[in-house]
Amino acid sequence: MENIGVMMTCPCSPSPYLQEELDKRFKLFRSWEFAKEEFFKANSKFIKAIVCNTVVGADAETIDLLPKLEIVSSFSVGLDKIDLVKCKEKGIRVTNTPDVLTDDVADTAIALILATLRRICEGDSYVRSGSWTTKWDFKLTTKFSGKRIGILGLGRIGSGIATRAEAFGCSISYHSRSEKLNAQNYKYYSNVVDLAANCDVLVVSCALTSETRHIVNREVINAVGPKGLIVNIGRGAHIDEPELVAALVEGRLGGAGLDVFEEEPEVPKELLELGNVVVLPHVGSNTWETDKDMADLVIANLEAHFLKKPLVTAVL
Amino acid sequence: MENIGVMMTCPCSPSPYLQEELDKRFKLFRSWEFAKEEFFKANSKFIKAIVCNTVVGADAETIDLLPKLEIVSSFSVGLDKIDLVKCKEKGIRVTNTPDVLTDDVADTAIALILATLRRICEGDSYVRSGSWTTKWDFKLTTKFSGKRIGILGLGRIGSGIATRAEAFGCSISYHSRSEKLNAQNYKYYSNVVDLAANCDVLVVSCALTSETRHIVNREVINAVGPKGLIVNIGRGAHIDEPELVAALVEGRLGGAGLDVFEEEPEVPKELLELGNVVVLPHVGSNTWETDKDMADLVIANLEAHFLKKPLVTAVL
Repeated sequence: MENIGVMMTCPCSPSPYLQEELDKRFKLFRSWEFAKEEFFKANSKFIKAIVCNTVVGADAETIDLLPKLEIVSSFSVGLDKIDLVKCKEKGIRVTNTPDVLTDDVADTAIALILATLRRICEGDSYVRSGSWTTKWDFKLTTKFSGKRIGILGLGRIGSGIATRAEAFGCSISYHSRSEKLNAQNYKYYSNVVDLAANCDVLVVSCALTSETRHIVNREVINAVGPKGLIVNIGRGAHIDEPELVAALVEGRLGGAGLDVFEEEPEVPKELLELGNVVVLPHVGSNTWETDKDMADLVIANLEAHFLKKPLVTAVL
Repeated sequence: MENIGVMMTCPCSPSPYLQEELDKRFKLFRSWEFAKEEFFKANSKFIKAIVCNTVVGADAETIDLLPKLEIVSSFSVGLDKIDLVKCKEKGIRVTNTPDVLTDDVADTAIALILATLRRICEGDSYVRSGSWTTKWDFKLTTKFSGKRIGILGLGRIGSGIATRAEAFGCSISYHSRSEKLNAQNYKYYSNVVDLAANCDVLVVSCALTSETRHIVNREVINAVGPKGLIVNIGRGAHIDEPELVAALVEGRLGGAGLDVFEEEPEVPKELLELGNVVVLPHVGSNTWETDKDMADLVIANLEAHFLKKPLVTAVL
């Protein structure tokens, strides 16, 4: 397959593994290294596959510029940066990397809850800065075990978060498009505001679609309230970010643990001054173990496609 | 009971709750506010109870200075700062605060594992410092779910850590004085070095006794190795601290998450420069919820004693 042209839209990962493995198997085009117009003029007729992620996906314009495109293999579970309608229209296959990243993202959610409630980063800074003296004045934090956890989207990742939180003695409630038959121990809310009003920690773990964009709006944030915490390991656009910032600044929301933002890598400046907030650079699945598993799955899907075998994790 | 003299050895908590509640019920002496010699000269004959913790306990000298002492009620589960032999000799009752702090300390252990492996504090600093740009260069971290967790001391807290880690798909092994009959799913090692050699994360959660002092020595640290992590939510003296520091500096140990240190609040300077280390100011049980529960239990034990009722959580 070394003559098949594969275009990467961005490096996808700080690790070189995916690029190295693609290089071994295909003719790899790194589009981000070139000026757009020239790149497409010179190479578009050779490119049969796109490898992309949630930073730079495959929009309608890019797809239209590639007449030989057969498949988009995304290094992500989320598909919000891929024009699925356009792909379907043109018969372009689409794959993602579900399952292999579930554990890491669920771990990140629990890490953000613990880090925010227990002020782990602040504690670490307090010790490192030499503030820890015999005054023993590091203030009390908030307990996690036993809290009421509300989960927005009980898919693979949401279920992984629920399982983990249960081991901390937490009660679980959730909202999703419909009640899940296999989640009898969890309380279902058909309304997001009701879920928010009845939990201590609201975790966003649904897919980003036109329906879930800004699903966490002013009303939901107020329902979580000044003693509550919002954790987002979904997508930035799930939350109305200016409303979240205003609620934190005004004390209408107790805290936030955020791995994702509306305009990454831009993070609202107001958040960076707050102690009741933990912010991560969208690293939910960025462990070296999962990076390799995701890369292998991206490649397995491409190989399956070009060998005319069934795709491993087909979306379209 | 307002005429019964109760001496606190230190504030015990950054919250005023315990002091306020003791003040309401007893004649409270705050010994840390006075010069030692004068304090005891003026007050020792009035003091029938000590309230202490793991910062300042009740040593033989203090006990001998208080001829009317009947009970030591510790705001802690650990008793390493109380001279139990002396108390037994003199017929002085001793109580602690087990159970109510188990969840928080187990949560702290999981928080330290996640924060260290997933570099949560470093990620938060990276975003806050403005380092997050379109380079997306925050390096990959290490997965937690599925790792092999080795627990030193499978008491209440160790068992709480095990239950939580199981929900992350981790396998559990442990070392304790003897094999536990109610822990059939966990692998028992009669030897600490064998436990260390067969786990990815070694968590110290045993009581500090003469037998467990420096139980994590050079050999154990080397057995955990350059890919392994050591987490300590027990006592600083469980670990040979200079050996731990040397192993981290020399790369013989992968990382450490530490809530406790040998000479608190002193923390070895070398640790403060390392990125694979998370350090906390001994806050394992320091949430406002648990602080109140512990304070209530300290008081309940004192009241039971002076009302000649059975102690709630008697040690001696």
